[in-house]
Amino acid sequence: MSVVKPLQAAQAIPFIKRVKDQCPLVHCITNDVVQNFTANVLLAIGASPAMVIAEQEVTAFVNVANSLLVNIGTINNNTAKSMLLAATETQKNQLPWVLDPVAVGSALIYRSEIAHQLLLLKPTVVRGNASEILALGGQNSSSKGPDSQDSTESALNAANLLAQKYQTIIAITGDVDYVTDGHNTYSIAGGDINLTKVTGTGCSLSAMVAAFIAVSTDALLATASACYMMKRAGELANKQQGLGTYAVSLLDQLSLFGDSHQ
Amino acid sequence: MSVVKPLQAAQAIPFIKRVKDQCPLVHCITNDVVQNFTANVLLAIGASPAMVIAEQEVTAFVNVANSLLVNIGTINNNTAKSMLLAATETQKNQLPWVLDPVAVGSALIYRSEIAHQLLLLKPTVVRGNASEILALGGQNSSSKGPDSQDSTESALNAANLLAQKYQTIIAITGDVDYVTDGHNTYSIAGGDINLTKVTGTGCSLSAMVAAFIAVSTDALLATASACYMMKRAGELANKQQGLGTYAVSLLDQLSLFGDSHQ
Amino acid sequence: MSVVKPLQAAQAIPFIKRVKDQCPLVHCITNDVVQNFTANVLLAIGASPAMVIAEQEVTAFVNVANSLLVNIGTINNNTAKSMLLAATETQKNQLPWVLDPVAVGSALIYRSEIAHQLLLLKPTVVRGNASEILALGGQNSSSKGPDSQDSTESALNAANLLAQKYQTIIAITGDVDYVTDGHNTYSIAGGDINLTKVTGTGCSLSAMVAAFIAVSTDALLATASACYMMKRAGELANKQQGLGTYAVSLLDQLSLFGDSHQ
Repeated sequence: MSVVKPLQAAQAIPFIKRVKDQCPLVHCITNDVVQNFTANVLLAIGASPAMVIAEQEVTAFVNVANSLLVNIGTINNNTAKSMLLAATETQKNQLPWVLDPVAVGSALIYRSEIAHQLLLLKPTVVRGNASEILALGGQNSSSKGPDSQDSTESALNAANLLAQKYQTIIAITGDVDYVTDGHNTYSIAGGDINLTKVTGTGCSLSAMVAAFIAVSTDALLATASACYMMKRAGELANKQQGLGTYAVSLLDQLSLFGDSHQ
Repeated sequence: MSVVKPLQAAQAIPFIKRVKDQCPLVHCITNDVVQNFTANVLLAIGASPAMVIAEQEVTAFVNVANSLLVNIGTINNNTAKSMLLAATETQKNQLPWVLDPVAVGSALIYRSEIAHQLLLLKPTVVRGNASEILALGGQNSSSKGPDSQDSTESALNAANLLAQKYQTIIAITGDVDYVTDGHNTYSIAGGDINLTKVTGTGCSLSAMVAAFIAVSTDALLATASACYMMKRAGELANKQQGLGTYAVSLLDQLSLFGDSHQ
Repeated sequence: MSVVKPLQAAQAIPFIKRVKDQCPLVHCITNDVVQNFTANVLLAIGASPAMVIAEQEVTAFVNVANSLLVNIGTINNNTAKSMLLAATETQKNQLPWVLDPVAVGSALIYRSEIAHQLLLLKPTVVRGNASEILALGGQNSSSKGPDSQDSTESALNAANLLAQKYQTIIAITGDVDYVTDGHNTYSIAGGDINLTKVTGTGCSLSAMVAAFIAVSTDALLATASACYMMKRAGELANKQQGLGTYAVSLLDQLSLFGDSHQ
């Protein structure tokens, strides 16, 4: 087993600042439910989103962008083709990219097969909930849809094995986030239960990870820092008015990092 | 004609609580404009949304989910195929599902044909505005786009005939909502004009109906209860700041049912 | 060079009122990131949005709607076909339509080719940022993605030449907006930097332009008036809470025009 160290806020802050200073261009091929929220999250943290999805365009655009996000949430024939083309292109120039294997698992065979093809194209980071990481590792999970029914701790062993096998970083997010390269692991506690009740917070965190690894060579710490930022914003967001206000306030808090708070 | 009874709040509350307690998984094949809002509405009422749309996945996923929503708002060749596959699969195990025939009518022949094919696959509930229900029933309506120009009362006769012919429940929503099985009809008054000025409130109500019928065998009363919940949240939402705040506050109010108010 | 005149608020107000009074139906074939926001912006200004995208439906629907918006942000094979069909149909009855050439330029050859095909179908107005207008005019721009790196003034010459060559109106929006028909040019100052940090404000402005030209024969002044409305709402929106609140407040302010302020 890898050693688990709690991430310190002081470790995350420089990464958060670097995104704001360098404004990385993040090429997103993501699902239809969260495109708007993902773009606004990236803008809020100071990054620049670009949703380019046509099979005719993704290969060229991967080389223009600073990093790539692939999210299979509403995958179909057309988007699967674009995802595989874009991920393949990252290999030529060792470009950083993030895979978000939404709802991967036994009931959804098609996306599970594509997810495994994408895994072989060496994503820099894979971010998922516990059920998704367990499913990717070939273990049983309790989930039926995109929401996890498993604890992140229960998926830590699967994450370590996946990280070693595919030489990637695995981020399991939930009650406590774990970010591991199979040898070193950061844990990030905190956050808020409301983060699970706004659609796209996990998907947007994957986009944030893509922005963070675009401006750093320490992908492990960059990924953990993105997780910290989302958890902290989730704590600071207004929980007094209901879920609509919470989602708006989450964007507010993400955009205020570096200004009024850290 | 069927007998029309006003729905009482006390009839709706148990259904609202049951959704929150049982957290049904709602499989949504819906339009691109409202995917995010629909997912957030389902989360706000305590249900779990899953937008699975690939033709390779919908048949399996219908059996995993607790109910299905089909909304033809931005239908095209690919989504039409998935909708028909998913709806066909509901017939095998008599799974509950909702059809939202957005903008059906004479100008849009393609979707009107698909809508009639879907109707033959026995949706548990069809929810639409007056113009859509009139158009489904083969009568003239005054609308050109997705917004209705007709009163719900003017479509009540068409709704009764459709409900009897297709052995389904028809919900006509607007100024006053009517929910009928062709024999018994509930009316739900109230709501707010601003509900017509936020995109996706009708589409999201259809998703709420899918959640409600997933946890009840009394589909007529479950559907009327979902209509009540949306109307009541629409009344309680903040109308003082403009339409942006109203939409956010509507989600707030939906999420607060069972906590601070009913 | 054309003469540049600053637009006066008093010139814009009648156009803003006319949209609210006449509620034009705007047919939108737009990108997946901004569909929800665009629909809510159109509803906020008093117009009626309709996102109809199937190749089987767009030709008929162009004739039902009062104007058409074509936005190539997430263009692919299917949507490109629908865009070309719809734009071609506008020529038969000289229907007003707006082209938003998102991220057109050298890295994205596919959309650039489609954009030029669309230009030949005589859009009433083309609205883009400086980089997009420079790219359309065959000049170098500094941008890599959908966000502009160039000043609007630097694109004014390209805009004049494009307007004359294609007999269209070009709106370049940014720090200062310029709207020209190649002979007369309006400038609109003001706005707020936060408008560039919320996704879809430019795309939604293009939709607003489509609504404005649907209810006026003076397309130049109608377009400039839409630009004024967005800039003014951007100034009035709440900048104190962060970007989430700003986006919500922007919709609030758009919906309050004609009521509490102008």
